[in-house]
Amino acid sequence: MADRKLPTRAEDFAEWYNQVVLRAEMADYAPVRGCMIVRPYGWALWENITAGLDRRFKATGHMNAAFPLLIPRSFIDKEKHHVAGFSPELAVVTIGGGEELEEPLVIRPTSETIIGHAYAKWIQSYRDLPVLINQWNSVVRWELRTKLFLRTLEFFWQEGHTAHATLEEAEAETRQMLDIYTDFAVRDAAIPVIPGRKSDSEKFAGADITYSIEAMMGDGKALQSGTSHNLGQNFAKAFDIKYLDKGGVHQFCWTTSWGLSTRFVGAIVMVHGDDQGLILPPRVAPYQVVIVPIFKSDEEKAAVFDAARKIRNELVAVDIRVKMDERDGMSPGFKFNDWEMRGVPLRIELGPKDVAGGSAVLARRDRPGREGKASVAQQGIASVVAKLLSEIQGALFQRALDFRKSNTLVPKDYNEFKLAVEKGFALSHWCGSADCEAKIKEETKATMRCIPLEQTAGPGECVYCGQAAPEQALFAKAY
Amino acid sequence: MADRKLPTRAEDFAEWYNQVVLRAEMADYAPVRGCMIVRPYGWALWENITAGLDRRFKATGHMNAAFPLLIPRSFIDKEKHHVAGFSPELAVVTIGGGEELEEPLVIRPTSETIIGHAYAKWIQSYRDLPVLINQWNSVVRWELRTKLFLRTLEFFWQEGHTAHATLEEAEAETRQMLDIYTDFAVRDAAIPVIPGRKSDSEKFAGADITYSIEAMMGDGKALQSGTSHNLGQNFAKAFDIKYLDKGGVHQFCWTTSWGLSTRFVGAIVMVHGDDQGLILPPRVAPYQVVIVPIFKSDEEKAAVFDAARKIRNELVAVDIRVKMDERDGMSPGFKFNDWEMRGVPLRIELGPKDVAGGSAVLARRDRPGREGKASVAQQGIASVVAKLLSEIQGALFQRALDFRKSNTLVPKDYNEFKLAVEKGFALSHWCGSADCEAKIKEETKATMRCIPLEQTAGPGECVYCGQAAPEQALFAKAY
Repeated sequence: MADRKLPTRAEDFAEWYNQVVLRAEMADYAPVRGCMIVRPYGWALWENITAGLDRRFKATGHMNAAFPLLIPRSFIDKEKHHVAGFSPELAVVTIGGGEELEEPLVIRPTSETIIGHAYAKWIQSYRDLPVLINQWNSVVRWELRTKLFLRTLEFFWQEGHTAHATLEEAEAETRQMLDIYTDFAVRDAAIPVIPGRKSDSEKFAGADITYSIEAMMGDGKALQSGTSHNLGQNFAKAFDIKYLDKGGVHQFCWTTSWGLSTRFVGAIVMVHGDDQGLILPPRVAPYQVVIVPIFKSDEEKAAVFDAARKIRNELVAVDIRVKMDERDGMSPGFKFNDWEMRGVPLRIELGPKDVAGGSAVLARRDRPGREGKASVAQQGIASVVAKLLSEIQGALFQRALDFRKSNTLVPKDYNEFKLAVEKGFALSHWCGSADCEAKIKEETKATMRCIPLEQTAGPGECVYCGQAAPEQALFAKAY
Repeated sequence: MADRKLPTRAEDFAEWYNQVVLRAEMADYAPVRGCMIVRPYGWALWENITAGLDRRFKATGHMNAAFPLLIPRSFIDKEKHHVAGFSPELAVVTIGGGEELEEPLVIRPTSETIIGHAYAKWIQSYRDLPVLINQWNSVVRWELRTKLFLRTLEFFWQEGHTAHATLEEAEAETRQMLDIYTDFAVRDAAIPVIPGRKSDSEKFAGADITYSIEAMMGDGKALQSGTSHNLGQNFAKAFDIKYLDKGGVHQFCWTTSWGLSTRFVGAIVMVHGDDQGLILPPRVAPYQVVIVPIFKSDEEKAAVFDAARKIRNELVAVDIRVKMDERDGMSPGFKFNDWEMRGVPLRIELGPKDVAGGSAVLARRDRPGREGKASVAQQGIASVVAKLLSEIQGALFQRALDFRKSNTLVPKDYNEFKLAVEKGFALSHWCGSADCEAKIKEETKATMRCIPLEQTAGPGECVYCGQAAPEQALFAKAY
């Protein structure tokens, strides 16, 4: 496999994606159909994603907890939309400790039900509210068509679950978490996203309102990259989550849930990658800098390693994540390609001439070839590197934003709409009818991604039926 | 429940444990028999445990990854000791996506098999070795008698899995990880542990050698608190994990695995707790300090809160984990009891008189009553608190060590042995025969916990049969 050439993104985007994920050793296929192994390099990226989110969750008063993997089958049946949404996708445990179980257990596809059951027990009075809990775990949904990171039977995510005294507080929480996802995507992952509201047909089973962030991948398709649900009182009523208000009256709680998964790793690959492989934004990259020593003789090696270690230590001292490639028996050219495939934002090349001159060559991953290379003094290299990493972070965001802008159209009619969704996003007025939405999907394969929160156009006419439409909606083919 | 008095440890240690775990809101029972919910306060403690371990794992070159939850049933059958060890404990998924599965899947009871399968694919040459991977996850074992944290159907842990070129390297890794567990237990959790080797009858199914750390709980019983296994070539042969050595010859790898679980939370509760509830070692405590403002009038409240916030900010600035208890409608006394139950190492009491005098009262959790209280100046309070936390950490370790020493006997005969294991540990010569071990267990309910690595006594006579015994072994009743 490693000998075959990587297909270009233009040739075959899907195969490019698979190959990059495998060759960069982000993930591998598991022996069970549709499951994946997240390999150390991919997991290190996920750990940086989790750290960026977890910090934001805790700053807004959330704490983590752990609810069980196994849920009584009957729990799923308690909320009617939820049961319709998840029943076909369940993995069911029927045998435990060698015996048939009286009641089958399902592996959580998501945890609203079992958490609802616990909240009903824990919440008594308005003093107990709000309850703000998040959980990092994996869930299982029996998907038929799977793809590494984007859709797998088991996937890794966080699921936040909160309970509130009023609708207003629940809605504020739902929107706050959407904002946090947006902020994380933009700032840490350098991915411009469009936050918006889902249509009824695309929303979460059991939610009153679902919000999502939508990002454009390198092939112009959309990827839903995080969702935040206002669950109204649906689960509160199904699981009897009540509180005694200040007036001594029992009220149902208002609950929310919100999640971001390992899909997001796929988004980073598909937004930033190029024909040489991954390009990772410095803020989430497992290694921000790789140092490749270049030498021929043992004498050269000693001098180069010595200087390389000094540079490494200076970068470590200012919290830059740096890897020194000390592998034997591989040429510098091989190492360059290897780290390019893995998307390390900045490479430091260090050979005998550089050492003699007290300099080092910096090569930007986002600007391949001579254009992205510069020789800098070893003296003070840490601050030069830090500045450059921040520049790369900004450049990746700007490039992704430019790409999205140039592939987002506001079609003047349905014909233009059909062309627009062949190559990217279409921003069009939509009357709100599920009928128009379904017909558009049937005829163009594009789905309504969201009704963007930011609306600039005002009312207009539905792109499909011509009826009055209060808002514009975002349409695209999607992963 | 909250109204009933907590039983003392002397009255009913088991019930004291359950009540403390529930009242401190560490964990709760789940709707599925034998499963637990780890509540935010308990999970925050576990997060600090994971951080302390993860830092040590990474410093020794390990990376994290994620292997799937679901394992083909046939994998378990490949290693004969393993299948014997785990078959009775499996949770089996037989239905997926509404259809009966062709091959049943088991929820991992541990991941040697599925990781072995992956390593066989990833490892080709000696250049690929060692492979040093760890995973934080949960596993399921169908236990019949369960207890919060100590033994649950699903539990949370880390499982490290490494592959090496030689037996020596595998053994060095196994011992290194045991040392890391020991260092963590002693330094971070203030728990003195005895590292040692398990007997054949107590070792892990599939291991050549199992090492463990053993700790004495507050009732004199032992708790196995972490294990490290040298798996020899057992899994390498079962899963065909081979590498091409420098001479171009295929060799089987040598593998290890090692784990520490949420049981450790139970250890912390049972080692340090007292009749008022938890006492948490500062290095792993979710909150190291709680500030309780004391006031009557609104005017007093404003002044006290103002001073309390200043203290809080100073503690935060030096990375002390501090909670300010701003809850309305609860008396200071109620709050004191609440935080004592939760084991916060240091309480700061702040009332109008303290504010007027520029002082604050510090109350140590490990020394209840007046003896542990001192009034200190608000000026410079952060360094006083930091020093005190470090003192508390040391005092907890010393107390646990003294307790273990005074409850560990070297019996001069089997009669003394029987008395010793009624109240604590017995350190006795053992001939190494499984027969003596089994009879001791049958007659005294004490099991062989480990053969301590540190041996001072030299050879002697088996406490049971009187035959020559090369070493001393540690016997105790165990959780």
